[in-house]
Amino acid sequence: MTLKKPKIVVLGAGYGGLMTVTKLQKMIGVNEADITLVNKNDYHYETTWLHEASAGTLHHDRVRYPISSVIERNKVEFVQDTAVEIKAAEKKVILENGELDYDYLVIAVGGESETFGIKGLKEYAFAIVNVNAARQIKEHIELQFATYQNEEDKKEDRLTIVVGGAGFTGIEFLGEMGNRIPELCREYDVDPNKVKLICVEAAPMVLPGFDPELVSYAVAQLEKKGVEFKIGTAIKECTPEGIIVAKGENEVEEIKAGTVVWAAGVRGNSIIEKSGIEAMRGRVKVQPDLRAPGSEDIFVIGDSSLMINEEINRPYPPTAQIAMQQGECCARNLAALIRGKAELEAFKPDIKGSVCSLGHDDAIGLVFGKKMVGAKASFMKKMVDNRALLLIGGASLVMKKGKFNVL
Amino acid sequence: MTLKKPKIVVLGAGYGGLMTVTKLQKMIGVNEADITLVNKNDYHYETTWLHEASAGTLHHDRVRYPISSVIERNKVEFVQDTAVEIKAAEKKVILENGELDYDYLVIAVGGESETFGIKGLKEYAFAIVNVNAARQIKEHIELQFATYQNEEDKKEDRLTIVVGGAGFTGIEFLGEMGNRIPELCREYDVDPNKVKLICVEAAPMVLPGFDPELVSYAVAQLEKKGVEFKIGTAIKECTPEGIIVAKGENEVEEIKAGTVVWAAGVRGNSIIEKSGIEAMRGRVKVQPDLRAPGSEDIFVIGDSSLMINEEINRPYPPTAQIAMQQGECCARNLAALIRGKAELEAFKPDIKGSVCSLGHDDAIGLVFGKKMVGAKASFMKKMVDNRALLLIGGASLVMKKGKFNVL
Repeated sequence: MTLKKPKIVVLGAGYGGLMTVTKLQKMIGVNEADITLVNKNDYHYETTWLHEASAGTLHHDRVRYPISSVIERNKVEFVQDTAVEIKAAEKKVILENGELDYDYLVIAVGGESETFGIKGLKEYAFAIVNVNAARQIKEHIELQFATYQNEEDKKEDRLTIVVGGAGFTGIEFLGEMGNRIPELCREYDVDPNKVKLICVEAAPMVLPGFDPELVSYAVAQLEKKGVEFKIGTAIKECTPEGIIVAKGENEVEEIKAGTVVWAAGVRGNSIIEKSGIEAMRGRVKVQPDLRAPGSEDIFVIGDSSLMINEEINRPYPPTAQIAMQQGECCARNLAALIRGKAELEAFKPDIKGSVCSLGHDDAIGLVFGKKMVGAKASFMKKMVDNRALLLIGGASLVMKKGKFNVL
Repeated sequence: MTLKKPKIVVLGAGYGGLMTVTKLQKMIGVNEADITLVNKNDYHYETTWLHEASAGTLHHDRVRYPISSVIERNKVEFVQDTAVEIKAAEKKVILENGELDYDYLVIAVGGESETFGIKGLKEYAFAIVNVNAARQIKEHIELQFATYQNEEDKKEDRLTIVVGGAGFTGIEFLGEMGNRIPELCREYDVDPNKVKLICVEAAPMVLPGFDPELVSYAVAQLEKKGVEFKIGTAIKECTPEGIIVAKGENEVEEIKAGTVVWAAGVRGNSIIEKSGIEAMRGRVKVQPDLRAPGSEDIFVIGDSSLMINEEINRPYPPTAQIAMQQGECCARNLAALIRGKAELEAFKPDIKGSVCSLGHDDAIGLVFGKKMVGAKASFMKKMVDNRALLLIGGASLVMKKGKFNVL
């Protein structure tokens, strides 16, 4: 007589989901559980490197690796498909091309771009959300330069790139573009003086929450690279020609631009709401053990989960660092559950620091409480990037995909 | 007392113009004449390699080199500008940013794409006419692949590429695209079965004038690479969505395509007509010594000139081979004129053969009367390409820019 093995289904092979699976496969034996990992693509990509692929400073193949290279095939079954709905009452996940039963479910489907209902953003702006989007942004910008050089009646607005949002993604993308534009000008014989790189941010500050001294450094460095900041300026609408921003109380101003990249917001995944799981803008306020409210068998981690940082009474930001730590905790809790333990571990984020890149050669960071800028911070950023590879795929993945182009 | 030196102005640094200047600078002394070369760009490009840059199989910087690298600065003054009108009665050339007087003028301004008045071609089709156009085509095609992979509601027509014209340029571009498409599919994760490569030709044959046995080989090889031929099919209109072709007597058919490349015609440069010089579709039927009809001081060479091949009573085709030979003859005639000789040399083309590439790995050719196909013809094509470099810039230019990627 064999006992029925519990079925664990993990949705999403981002930082959280892939960490859950790679940790869990080490913790449990082949006979303890069936693990199924579901992901749209057969590869994992480094969300935190997408700004580089979007700018064209790093090839998109450098930011992804095959899922098969990090999972143990005898313990984990990989299904390349997209989850469309979770039927919690039936313990079932509906996929585009099938369905899966589960005993335990991990929702690690990542976030989506949040457009706050701003008109035209969905249609006319790009968002740095995945590999497909990143390479479209790169190709779109290159075509703007190539077209400008080839059109008789030159439209200079083609060479204007607007970045909506001065948060992490916006700033990191601006840093890469600051380096990329001189390359693009050489490649397409375009006068660098014709190119504009504009950052529009509704909030009154750049990188809210970051140390003000570091932020000042970042702004000065990006301005040196040609970035023009329009802070405290809200985008009202995005059009095929550019954006319309609020100017004063009642006036508006048009900024014509060939490229608009929206990098101002992340919300949870829409599958959460579609499945009737209680959420705030798609993010589930999870229990301390990472399970959905009132649920015994559904974990939610990563950008679709929400946890409050009690110290400042604000949610923790949706970062790779936290998603990976949640993945580790989730794996331990799953192992405990299938071994019949009632007591689960409460998740405690361990924020080691935060480094924001300003291009491959510059960065700002607060690491273990220490402020740093320039080459040193940039080196630290690469170490942070390599650490994600190390935690999920070990040293061999770092050797294959790591960043070693130290100054 | 110093005699006034005659002023020679050469318009255009294509095959004909640049050959004229590089030969002439070797033939005459510094005190014999002032030579001025006028060109829009500060570089020369290999028109016959543009199909490769357009397909993305050769970087556009590989198909061009600085004009300064082949001219002797003490004998030739280079002016980067564009000629807008020739005032023959005043012996003057009007440039966009100035004007030049001349005693002898060489018009070597190259051809333009001939659209035969087909509606929408100018607006919606690309033409492989220069470096700027080539890289725009390359970028446009790449963006189609990137966008297809990123759009939710996938438009397969994006992946259709229509080439209008089965002449030399059309066939050579199709050969490159046949090789490039598998690369593009890998790069953008696109299913190769979704891509279509269609050649539409109004004439009832491919490569008119070429040996029928070689043409059959070319068609079979291109079909193996996925090219679909629609021969005897006239394009009626080009739209933002693709093309409309005649089907039978009164019907039309729409072929939707994300990219339309028009490669079906070359005419002379519009500056010829604008300047009131007698021409047929912008091509000047020159005297045997290459001077314009009735003119003592204006030479016309290259694609803007027209000479009849008496053997078949048809014009010689506008090729790099003939343009370069005309450049040599023109240089000798200019040297004769400034030395007061009345007798000028009559131009006699020496057609060594013709090789049509079908991608970097295949070709068809008729060289010194010998038919050849495949690797041998492809090798010969590279030698033809290198010969153009050798004739204009010598061995050092061949070493820098030559093609040596033999199978």
